[in-house]
Amino acid sequence: MQCPTPRQETERVLLGHGAGGRLTAELLATLVLPALGARPGPLEDAATLPPLESPVVSTDSFVVSPLFFPGGDIGSLAVHGTVNDLAMRGAEPVALAVSLIIEEGMALAELRSVMESLGKAAADAEVPVVTGDTKVVGRGAADRLFITTTGIGRRLPGLEPSAARARPNDAVLLSGPIGLHGTAVLSTREGLGFDADIASDSCPLHRLVRALAPLGGGVHTLRDPTRGGLAAALNEIAEASGTGAEIDEAALPVPGPVAAACDLLGLDPLHVANEGCLVAYVPEPRADDALRAMRGVPEGASAVRVGRTTAAHPGRVELSTRVGSRRVIDMPLGEQLPRIC
Amino acid sequence: MQCPTPRQETERVLLGHGAGGRLTAELLATLVLPALGARPGPLEDAATLPPLESPVVSTDSFVVSPLFFPGGDIGSLAVHGTVNDLAMRGAEPVALAVSLIIEEGMALAELRSVMESLGKAAADAEVPVVTGDTKVVGRGAADRLFITTTGIGRRLPGLEPSAARARPNDAVLLSGPIGLHGTAVLSTREGLGFDADIASDSCPLHRLVRALAPLGGGVHTLRDPTRGGLAAALNEIAEASGTGAEIDEAALPVPGPVAAACDLLGLDPLHVANEGCLVAYVPEPRADDALRAMRGVPEGASAVRVGRTTAAHPGRVELSTRVGSRRVIDMPLGEQLPRIC
Repeated sequence: MQCPTPRQETERVLLGHGAGGRLTAELLATLVLPALGARPGPLEDAATLPPLESPVVSTDSFVVSPLFFPGGDIGSLAVHGTVNDLAMRGAEPVALAVSLIIEEGMALAELRSVMESLGKAAADAEVPVVTGDTKVVGRGAADRLFITTTGIGRRLPGLEPSAARARPNDAVLLSGPIGLHGTAVLSTREGLGFDADIASDSCPLHRLVRALAPLGGGVHTLRDPTRGGLAAALNEIAEASGTGAEIDEAALPVPGPVAAACDLLGLDPLHVANEGCLVAYVPEPRADDALRAMRGVPEGASAVRVGRTTAAHPGRVELSTRVGSRRVIDMPLGEQLPRIC
Repeated sequence: MQCPTPRQETERVLLGHGAGGRLTAELLATLVLPALGARPGPLEDAATLPPLESPVVSTDSFVVSPLFFPGGDIGSLAVHGTVNDLAMRGAEPVALAVSLIIEEGMALAELRSVMESLGKAAADAEVPVVTGDTKVVGRGAADRLFITTTGIGRRLPGLEPSAARARPNDAVLLSGPIGLHGTAVLSTREGLGFDADIASDSCPLHRLVRALAPLGGGVHTLRDPTRGGLAAALNEIAEASGTGAEIDEAALPVPGPVAAACDLLGLDPLHVANEGCLVAYVPEPRADDALRAMRGVPEGASAVRVGRTTAAHPGRVELSTRVGSRRVIDMPLGEQLPRIC
């Protein structure tokens, strides 16, 4: 939908755009709501939803820098990140609430791009944006744009995945290659030139989870390895369930350009954030069924088995390296890559 | 609950505290979760909720500056603001999701104060914080702390207030004095010295709405006059419903110190934000019942009738002044007071 006041495209966000008056109403009516595909109409303080038998809720703030990167931007990321947090609890999204914190002076054209991307990502994920909020802070009080997305979901019947439900003799499955999102953002931010070869994997994972639904309670654990990377996800599961895991380095899908970028930057691909893959823990006898189901949807086309759980070292995650040695995969201490999501 | 590592009190937030690794886990375990009264346990990507017959959702980002002001702080405000947005749709809160964006270098002691205030406000409102997120951005990329709170609520049976449901011959009721929140924050921020006489009215309004529940569908419209003040709330209702309103200036409860502060600052008290009062539109024959119900709870003790709706000038809000003249109450253009909530 076109903006009825194209002159805005050379204009910038003013403090008054966040003040709840006429300027706020204009920003919403001419930019935010059209981008989100929202029907015009009275704005209320809160949105009503249809009855929910088993609601799930998740919230995430997105502060990624830069706002645009190969494979996505803060708008699409703000949808995918929250949809995926719901999916990791076995839920599909029902509604999104989106809250913006904008720095005074941000170009309206740029804000429009982000909001259109957010609207498109939400439409692709088949989830409406039902309510939101817009705040503007003065120059220097924020870095251009932060987006907080909250998702309300509905648990798929039979699924009750939880980090605490991992058990010994589970297969550890990974739905796709690791390290793409973090290295794509870092390369763009720092001008490292990998951008041509690396794009973020950012995508919604609820359809992949839906494909796993026939396994029901057999899906012990789902986790998307975002901040802290696969290392953090595996350690959180190990800690929550008290179950150790053994990961096979040779089975880990690390794309060549990601490996090269990590080598150059001194990063461990296991610590780099992802936004479009998940780990699934299922009982060993169900592993082939689960892999087949995952590979049946595009997001899971390259799903692989990367390891197994064990009662031998509760709570600890170990890596069997290519050269036949073993090392512990630790929880990352802090962040090698700030503002990655 | 005491922090097990009191040395932290002289320490500051690091970038790594938002990175999803060990530092994040430590911040959550030693500061955030105890302050929120959350039971320790595995952290999941999303929280499950009990079945909801008529769910309502609302989200708000809070960017108030300063973080602490007479009558509240960003933590309590982040609870009250969202609880009240739910209440304005006739809902009581069931769960809150809280997302933090923290500037690197913020004192942990200050963050703890805010989180304890947030936890106390949530407990007082009888609503649990069920999920959240923590991001840290570098120095200068945010102004200390922004909080986004999303509330999930349950609509009270029989209530379906909406800005669009105002009708001619409604009484316009106001639950308490106006102008306190905005002037309290401004006075503190600018060091104007009104702080001794003015405190924010910030408080949760769901109990006041519950008191109105016996009027059922007779409660046409509820609105809390936050950003843009009473002028914005009245104009939004007039626009959404196509119903005009006539407000009696002599009936408007403007506390003396607020009037003095507004005089000095050239502000119109009708444009100043509130965080603890609401306007209710009810059919004239029900007005006394509604006032009695409102005055029965502490938040509504000083509820008054401030005007009535009319078919005479659809969509327009007029003020009958003390001197007997009439003027239009316009929608404020932008904000006289940025970062007020």
